[in-house]
Amino acid sequence: MELSLVLDLLGTIAFAISGVLTAFKKRMDLFGIFIIAFVTAAGGGTLRDILIQAPITWMRDLTFVYVIAGAAVFALIFRKKLGYLRRSLFLFDTIGIALYTVVGVQKGFEAEFPFLVCVALGTITASFGGVIRDLLCNEIPVIFRKEIYATACIVGGSMYYLLRMAGLPIDLVAIASGVVVMTIRLLAVWFKWSLPNIYSREELNQ
Amino acid sequence: MELSLVLDLLGTIAFAISGVLTAFKKRMDLFGIFIIAFVTAAGGGTLRDILIQAPITWMRDLTFVYVIAGAAVFALIFRKKLGYLRRSLFLFDTIGIALYTVVGVQKGFEAEFPFLVCVALGTITASFGGVIRDLLCNEIPVIFRKEIYATACIVGGSMYYLLRMAGLPIDLVAIASGVVVMTIRLLAVWFKWSLPNIYSREELNQ
Amino acid sequence: MELSLVLDLLGTIAFAISGVLTAFKKRMDLFGIFIIAFVTAAGGGTLRDILIQAPITWMRDLTFVYVIAGAAVFALIFRKKLGYLRRSLFLFDTIGIALYTVVGVQKGFEAEFPFLVCVALGTITASFGGVIRDLLCNEIPVIFRKEIYATACIVGGSMYYLLRMAGLPIDLVAIASGVVVMTIRLLAVWFKWSLPNIYSREELNQ
Repeated sequence: MELSLVLDLLGTIAFAISGVLTAFKKRMDLFGIFIIAFVTAAGGGTLRDILIQAPITWMRDLTFVYVIAGAAVFALIFRKKLGYLRRSLFLFDTIGIALYTVVGVQKGFEAEFPFLVCVALGTITASFGGVIRDLLCNEIPVIFRKEIYATACIVGGSMYYLLRMAGLPIDLVAIASGVVVMTIRLLAVWFKWSLPNIYSREELNQ
Repeated sequence: MELSLVLDLLGTIAFAISGVLTAFKKRMDLFGIFIIAFVTAAGGGTLRDILIQAPITWMRDLTFVYVIAGAAVFALIFRKKLGYLRRSLFLFDTIGIALYTVVGVQKGFEAEFPFLVCVALGTITASFGGVIRDLLCNEIPVIFRKEIYATACIVGGSMYYLLRMAGLPIDLVAIASGVVVMTIRLLAVWFKWSLPNIYSREELNQ
Repeated sequence: MELSLVLDLLGTIAFAISGVLTAFKKRMDLFGIFIIAFVTAAGGGTLRDILIQAPITWMRDLTFVYVIAGAAVFALIFRKKLGYLRRSLFLFDTIGIALYTVVGVQKGFEAEFPFLVCVALGTITASFGGVIRDLLCNEIPVIFRKEIYATACIVGGSMYYLLRMAGLPIDLVAIASGVVVMTIRLLAVWFKWSLPNIYSREELNQ
């Protein structure tokens, strides 16, 4: 799956760059910046592998370590120009979420975990790197507060599981589910969708 | 052990509700609230299973996932009335701590870990969910500052280990140790026990 | 390796004491202080063992648990006099970093992980305890902001790997790499080395 590899790399790059930019705002040193880039891009997959007790991907295949390091250096050098790239970055990030979701749910599916656990594994793969990034930067994880991000992962992940159960071929299911994740995320940002507000006016004014 | 299952579910519900209330105060969205409820109720057991390298309970048996989701929905809908429930909640929470401690120390005992490690596993099972909840909400874990909570787990967990070593039947030991955890916690709250203060007056005024 | 054991214990003591002092500043209770001492001293090795899916050292051998508890009690009792000990503590801490790095990279090397992963394992063993300490105390990890700490681990860890690949005897390699970690750290503090500043003056004034 050559295309999948390219997309996966683009996603990794986007996640690494988002890590660099966050660490940068916190005035971390070079080491801190690299670590934040790394956990943002690899943290979700690492937690997934720990939970399903599989070998951790990046520990045996260094491709992603090199890609993350390269993206971090790039982001540092061109940080002043990344504003112009905001759209591309957002697109990469969306691709990353979609791919990471598919990879996560697929790993769960193949290890025969139940439906909800597979969907959770997809969502964890796509979102937990960002959660660790925010924790290490001493912020409440952004995903818990204003993103529809996770909803896209949950819908796409569920679709993946159900279509695989229905017996459709793996490549088709992966592409279709990934496209669904991306579409929901793009539409959500475009139309400013958010989860239904659960707070009353008084609660918000407190 | 039907009774044990009922109590375990009550404990899970109490932990999940305490997670919802914390996330709610931080104005998290629906997704964030569910995640915080989930880690509060399942985080301690997950860390325990990772440490002893056993399969993670909720990944193969979804009962607790459903219970947590139900408790979260309930807590959200009735959040204005939970004030009246405070006493019941506190009781559930105490039951939860007791049960989680027993489950944790039992798993350690059966895997033949040494005494202190078994007690630590019981305490981790009972308290780590709350630690992760506080970390994700960007607070210093409450357990490190004002609760005698952990002391109850340590005493009850030690008792469990010693009685099992003495050859007493497992059900009796589980019940007796659980009751000890609950009693210490209830007495501690009733009589406002706390760990001995280690700070001098000057230190506290700094 | 008797010497190695003594040095390892000294390092553990130094890490535990640094944990106590941090928890103390946050006015934690006795339980919180012990937990912070424990994660500072044992957290890095625990994460390493989880990542390489090896049994977790302190769960089968309690020596370090006792040493950490003893160091915590010592630090609490003599906290007012630890100022006089600052130099010894710094030395112990440096020894600890060196030993922990060597232990970590050695475990990775023997499990045949690739070069970069071995170096990362050494660095994680030496530094992650401090990261967890800072997270639990609700601070941005100090290692991400002003220490050359990690650089010393990376250089010494790389040296270990390369010398072992070159076929040198394990004891010699361990000692030489540990000495390199210590030397870099001591020189860095002495000459106030830091990683190259990557922030422009405008960025720092924002």
